[in-house]
Amino acid sequence: MSKLEVAMLGHVALEVPDLEGSIKFWRDIVGLIETDRRGNEVYLRGWGEFEHHSMVLIQGKEARLHHVGWKARSAEDLDKFATYLRGQGVTVDEVPAGTELGQGEAIRFFVPTSGHPMEIYWDMERPLAPEEIRSLLKSQSAQARLRGVSPRRIDHVNLWCGQTSPDDTIAWMSEHLGFKVREYIQLPDLKLGAWMSVTPLVHDVAFMFDPATRGARLHHIGYWIDTPQDILHALGHFAEHGIRADLGPGMHGITQAFYSYIRDPSSGHLLEIFSGGYLIFDPAWEPIKWEAQELERGLFWYGDSMDPTTEPEHPFARTTGARTE
Amino acid sequence: MSKLEVAMLGHVALEVPDLEGSIKFWRDIVGLIETDRRGNEVYLRGWGEFEHHSMVLIQGKEARLHHVGWKARSAEDLDKFATYLRGQGVTVDEVPAGTELGQGEAIRFFVPTSGHPMEIYWDMERPLAPEEIRSLLKSQSAQARLRGVSPRRIDHVNLWCGQTSPDDTIAWMSEHLGFKVREYIQLPDLKLGAWMSVTPLVHDVAFMFDPATRGARLHHIGYWIDTPQDILHALGHFAEHGIRADLGPGMHGITQAFYSYIRDPSSGHLLEIFSGGYLIFDPAWEPIKWEAQELERGLFWYGDSMDPTTEPEHPFARTTGARTE
Amino acid sequence: MSKLEVAMLGHVALEVPDLEGSIKFWRDIVGLIETDRRGNEVYLRGWGEFEHHSMVLIQGKEARLHHVGWKARSAEDLDKFATYLRGQGVTVDEVPAGTELGQGEAIRFFVPTSGHPMEIYWDMERPLAPEEIRSLLKSQSAQARLRGVSPRRIDHVNLWCGQTSPDDTIAWMSEHLGFKVREYIQLPDLKLGAWMSVTPLVHDVAFMFDPATRGARLHHIGYWIDTPQDILHALGHFAEHGIRADLGPGMHGITQAFYSYIRDPSSGHLLEIFSGGYLIFDPAWEPIKWEAQELERGLFWYGDSMDPTTEPEHPFARTTGARTE
Amino acid sequence: MSKLEVAMLGHVALEVPDLEGSIKFWRDIVGLIETDRRGNEVYLRGWGEFEHHSMVLIQGKEARLHHVGWKARSAEDLDKFATYLRGQGVTVDEVPAGTELGQGEAIRFFVPTSGHPMEIYWDMERPLAPEEIRSLLKSQSAQARLRGVSPRRIDHVNLWCGQTSPDDTIAWMSEHLGFKVREYIQLPDLKLGAWMSVTPLVHDVAFMFDPATRGARLHHIGYWIDTPQDILHALGHFAEHGIRADLGPGMHGITQAFYSYIRDPSSGHLLEIFSGGYLIFDPAWEPIKWEAQELERGLFWYGDSMDPTTEPEHPFARTTGARTE
Repeated sequence: MSKLEVAMLGHVALEVPDLEGSIKFWRDIVGLIETDRRGNEVYLRGWGEFEHHSMVLIQGKEARLHHVGWKARSAEDLDKFATYLRGQGVTVDEVPAGTELGQGEAIRFFVPTSGHPMEIYWDMERPLAPEEIRSLLKSQSAQARLRGVSPRRIDHVNLWCGQTSPDDTIAWMSEHLGFKVREYIQLPDLKLGAWMSVTPLVHDVAFMFDPATRGARLHHIGYWIDTPQDILHALGHFAEHGIRADLGPGMHGITQAFYSYIRDPSSGHLLEIFSGGYLIFDPAWEPIKWEAQELERGLFWYGDSMDPTTEPEHPFARTTGARTE
Repeated sequence: MSKLEVAMLGHVALEVPDLEGSIKFWRDIVGLIETDRRGNEVYLRGWGEFEHHSMVLIQGKEARLHHVGWKARSAEDLDKFATYLRGQGVTVDEVPAGTELGQGEAIRFFVPTSGHPMEIYWDMERPLAPEEIRSLLKSQSAQARLRGVSPRRIDHVNLWCGQTSPDDTIAWMSEHLGFKVREYIQLPDLKLGAWMSVTPLVHDVAFMFDPATRGARLHHIGYWIDTPQDILHALGHFAEHGIRADLGPGMHGITQAFYSYIRDPSSGHLLEIFSGGYLIFDPAWEPIKWEAQELERGLFWYGDSMDPTTEPEHPFARTTGARTE
Repeated sequence: MSKLEVAMLGHVALEVPDLEGSIKFWRDIVGLIETDRRGNEVYLRGWGEFEHHSMVLIQGKEARLHHVGWKARSAEDLDKFATYLRGQGVTVDEVPAGTELGQGEAIRFFVPTSGHPMEIYWDMERPLAPEEIRSLLKSQSAQARLRGVSPRRIDHVNLWCGQTSPDDTIAWMSEHLGFKVREYIQLPDLKLGAWMSVTPLVHDVAFMFDPATRGARLHHIGYWIDTPQDILHALGHFAEHGIRADLGPGMHGITQAFYSYIRDPSSGHLLEIFSGGYLIFDPAWEPIKWEAQELERGLFWYGDSMDPTTEPEHPFARTTGARTE
Repeated sequence: MSKLEVAMLGHVALEVPDLEGSIKFWRDIVGLIETDRRGNEVYLRGWGEFEHHSMVLIQGKEARLHHVGWKARSAEDLDKFATYLRGQGVTVDEVPAGTELGQGEAIRFFVPTSGHPMEIYWDMERPLAPEEIRSLLKSQSAQARLRGVSPRRIDHVNLWCGQTSPDDTIAWMSEHLGFKVREYIQLPDLKLGAWMSVTPLVHDVAFMFDPATRGARLHHIGYWIDTPQDILHALGHFAEHGIRADLGPGMHGITQAFYSYIRDPSSGHLLEIFSGGYLIFDPAWEPIKWEAQELERGLFWYGDSMDPTTEPEHPFARTTGARTE
């Protein structure tokens, strides 16, 4: 059997304690487009996305990650993943079509090493945008920049592994889902984290050590913004709503992201608005290693800096909760 | 055997009638970095590239395309391509390591339907940039924007097929090299062209009908510029050198490229400086079809327009010569 | 008496044949903010403006310029202008406060040499923006970029003088209203036009020769957009509404404007969205002269070009109607 | 006598302890253009400037401000200023032509209230740029963006007044040199500072309270960069030279500046690279007042924040030395 690989990051499903508050942030201020709604679930996507949703907001008791949805490369691969993962001793739940609006049959499981909740799906509806916002450009579903920050598409998720090395998880994602390590931080006695992708994006997902908590967490969700200039405008837009960024604007050396991090005031879930970056097409790419003495440059090429007094354990310690068993 | 696919566009080798004149354009004004030189060959790359070269300039009798170099996915694949293509009746030349500086063994052949000269390689040196221009960012070889327009990396090639439909060539590239059609123009009686990729880029290569000439040609080489703002600055830089763009700045509807086209005054080879665009990660992507009545929007979302008086046959008729037998 | 000078361009009043159509363009698509309305008059301003309006749309029989409103440097200066201009033989109409909503007493007159209708005012209300769009930034009245192209403020007007040299008008504006020539085009037998200002802007107003018509006209109104990148986004926004620019995007050599010209489809009035430019603080500035052989560079540093076949008389011949007696 | 007003900020003369080190920063990394040199003085300007220099670097014992050069509105005004200031009891030094290379006769004096060294000049040479870097655009002296950060022109100076209120100095600059207050910070018991201009720029000069030192200081020199995107690129360029910004990138609410602050490693003199901002044309402009509870928004609209633990006395406490008696 040729090695299985997922195709792309499709969506993130988030539980939030105050659904209306989170809708206000993600739809009205950030400007994601609501595509559907069922009971206590709201479905959103960016103007560049054709699939039914890249984000699901679910009314829950507290803020946590419900799951990360990965698209398989084919319907067959979806079946193969179910079989393969069970063969690896993973408990795989089959969720019927419609469990998530717009989505066909899927499988869900937890990464055995870290506990992060994952989903693999294949079939997804591609609803047209309402006519009044539909784009005349055939390669995007809706008009760009109609409201708020207006991200084009989901870009990546950043997941934290608690107080143990993310090494096992990085290895597991690589061996079983096909992710390649693109860049990583190696401290003398700890792999601090790795940026991994199945696409030419420098990362679809990152896994990081988390000095502050025990369990698995979602750190942030990255959405793509077309240019750094648009990110600057976005920060002005957030400021008009009294929202200050946790970090940024700045540029990470690792990933070359031009970034800023903004927290949904209602749930605490963290958004990275992300532009720039670079693409990796070369199959011979060797993972880039960053060591302790070059860490500030790797994390903050410009725009922020490491603060030894407030960040004794981790230079990047801003987190949100994720689903645990 | 699983289907063979090339991995990425690696480089373009161009014959030029006045090597010094072309060096002045591509290195001194455009700002590509010279990495090597041997006799009448000069090797260049962008600051974001690690491979030995993305462009070779070769002193020749006239401006023509020497070959387009595609990287295989592995050393094994390179061998398989040689066997497979011969099995398809294609004449395949094996070129020894060092035929092109920095490059290992490779194969060369002509696309049977169009006659465009192609190369597939695997092994390529990754020389460090000279220390004085080397980047502290580990994900790029040299400092960005040190001179001229300063492209980051090669993006795509646009190839013209002469006065017959590019249909056969599009099909051949798809069937034998693994390219997927991302967008295409279908006129009532003619497929005007298609944009194809093996990567998530909306195109690594395009093939177009050419009303003006018989044989295969290179239309242009696309290099990536990080932002549209940088392309605008680039046009000011060209203006200071008395060089006016053939087209642009503008945005293509097809590919969403923010573009401008500038001709090497010495050779006539055409450069597209390219930013924006969009990425296709979805394996279920259906090629986007553009028809006659929406052609202006597809070609020129903004910035240029179709002129029925001067463009009777082709809205995009600016070409340069390519290698023929 | 120290020489009189107006202080700044305040607003433009435009007659339009289809008020609703023009509101749709200027308010809903361009994104100017409606501040007031009375009968067949609608008042608009940009988000960076505090005065009551920078544009008035007036239902009329046809598209024409009603007047250009210049702010005096003081209430005293307004009186002095009335006296002074009458002393120059100019017919000066005094219009009572409230003739234009938000505006105090003003004077109106026609430039004697060209016939362009001008107004000088001093007193103008500064209404707060509605709370839901008011900015937390105290130096602008409303939040930026809430809708459409979203210009910050009016920048300049470009006025055409018909088939005679604008020389007399340029001299009159200079001698009587205090404008300084910043750049001009001198053809062998004709001053093609001049860019003039009382502020450090390279122009508040330009006067141009017009080969195509007899009378005075408004050529276009310039509104300021913060960055060239925003102008590019604006062109995509217009494209979604099926509106193509008449010219641009590009950069004028003269004024260093990064520009595009878009026509109100309903009235034909022409908008220049304008960014870049440069500022002139030096009182010793000498007007820059552009001659025939450098005209293309002066008009189109990049982005457009002069076409000798379609522009035999004037490289810039796109005009809209203005008020005549 | 009509009230005297200076016309514009012309240049800043800085003493530096290591001339070669400072040349490396300001010329080679920042990218100002060296126009002249005499003994231990080096003269620099931006590519958009026509006057002989906007910065003089002078070998000195330590980093301090030698003087700020203001251009008069006319030769007559220069004479009038000498007489007028003496009439106010100010000691005025007349410096002969050539004291500063390129400059005619000038006067120098200290602001009586703060001690900041000022110069007023009228006559200044306007040397052509060397042909190889001269611009084809007639409204700038040299080609843009040839090297480094490449500022267009000087924008403003920010001066600190020591541990007493800057109130007297603000009043003195207003009454005697013609500056208008555009924005200011009023704390319950202290005017923290004011931004003032004689031009439509929101400030040509700012005066601030300085909790940390007794005497007058130069805080920073602002140079104009065309777009925020260029400032971001600049920060990458500084990073390649191992230079991290003291502050930014971010946007000040006050002035609407998109900024970053970078220190000459050799002298400690501080550069603000500055874009954005807004222009004030209205003679009826009322100074904008910011109070304690809105200070963070005024200082850091986005990008930085006030830190009560490290900035107990002043949110902006980064200073360099200035000339005292």
